[in-house]
Amino acid sequence: MSSTIPVTTHKKEEFINMTPRIQKEINVQGVQNGLCHLFIPHTTAAVTINENADPDVITDILHGLSTMVPNQGFKHREGNSPAHIRSSLFGVSLNVPIHNGELKLGIWQGVYFCEFDGPRDRQMWISLFPF
Amino acid sequence: MSSTIPVTTHKKEEFINMTPRIQKEINVQGVQNGLCHLFIPHTTAAVTINENADPDVITDILHGLSTMVPNQGFKHREGNSPAHIRSSLFGVSLNVPIHNGELKLGIWQGVYFCEFDGPRDRQMWISLFPF
Amino acid sequence: MSSTIPVTTHKKEEFINMTPRIQKEINVQGVQNGLCHLFIPHTTAAVTINENADPDVITDILHGLSTMVPNQGFKHREGNSPAHIRSSLFGVSLNVPIHNGELKLGIWQGVYFCEFDGPRDRQMWISLFPF
Repeated sequence: MSSTIPVTTHKKEEFINMTPRIQKEINVQGVQNGLCHLFIPHTTAAVTINENADPDVITDILHGLSTMVPNQGFKHREGNSPAHIRSSLFGVSLNVPIHNGELKLGIWQGVYFCEFDGPRDRQMWISLFPF
Repeated sequence: MSSTIPVTTHKKEEFINMTPRIQKEINVQGVQNGLCHLFIPHTTAAVTINENADPDVITDILHGLSTMVPNQGFKHREGNSPAHIRSSLFGVSLNVPIHNGELKLGIWQGVYFCEFDGPRDRQMWISLFPF
Repeated sequence: MSSTIPVTTHKKEEFINMTPRIQKEINVQGVQNGLCHLFIPHTTAAVTINENADPDVITDILHGLSTMVPNQGFKHREGNSPAHIRSSLFGVSLNVPIHNGELKLGIWQGVYFCEFDGPRDRQMWISLFPF
């Protein structure tokens, strides 16, 4: 009941809508009702749920994070400490209900892979727990 | 094992203690031990756990968020980008253990619906997973 | 399938790597595949996943949080409102997959207990859900 979705990012910071790929996995495994657990095995990326309609919202989220966590005063030599902080702020683990074979999201919600230190080859892990 | 709790908010920003309503749902469904999954199907609201004793803590959390995410430099025309950011910072998904028929929280903890762009009619979705 | 890990913190702010203690619990309970749910029953602490290699990353995360949430303008008399805010920002609930008897983390990831208002005697609660 576990699988891996590869994610290729193309920018330093980028949100990728994963909803269709997660739904496809639910279809393949044939789960009707239960819980979908999403996990990001990286320390400079995250998973979040936010608006799937106006792309300006994602732009604004990235802008907001850049003002909240400026890159100054850090020790880590790789220079990507703000990406590590953003990863912990948004989190790498998320659960979404599955209802009647569908990922049950609110009407304006999409599930996003959050790249904070790309571009890189990344993964999202999915585990499905039927009732 | 899934249900919806309607939540009516009355202010622009407001935290509503959901603990009694979640406990009532556990009682109705008769789950003794397992996991309670809470999900907010909105993009300008969230769910969090924090202090249930001194209401000043919630006031301070809202004040802290207002200084962390000021409403400036955003593109989204609805003008509520800070609410979208707060939603992703606090998150829309949360799990709490159920033990001996009770939502197992720490002594000072309460579960809060976080309204960041109200007043609105909102929902909290609950799924219970017995062991 | 539930247990409590005691955690003693020694500083005002400190991250403690819990990965070995969580793995030990999985070994004791003999779970091969499923979900590990971690829960922090405190309102000025949290749980997060971040880098387990360079300790400067943790130092930088604490530094970043201190600049994001300065201790000013708060009402709560205990004076620890920033710790309450950090608790909700990072969260008190986290799920990690279990695969072949092992806590399945990314190669650079560790699970951290986050103390934001120590030193104190704390707890991490663990619940294991086999597939």
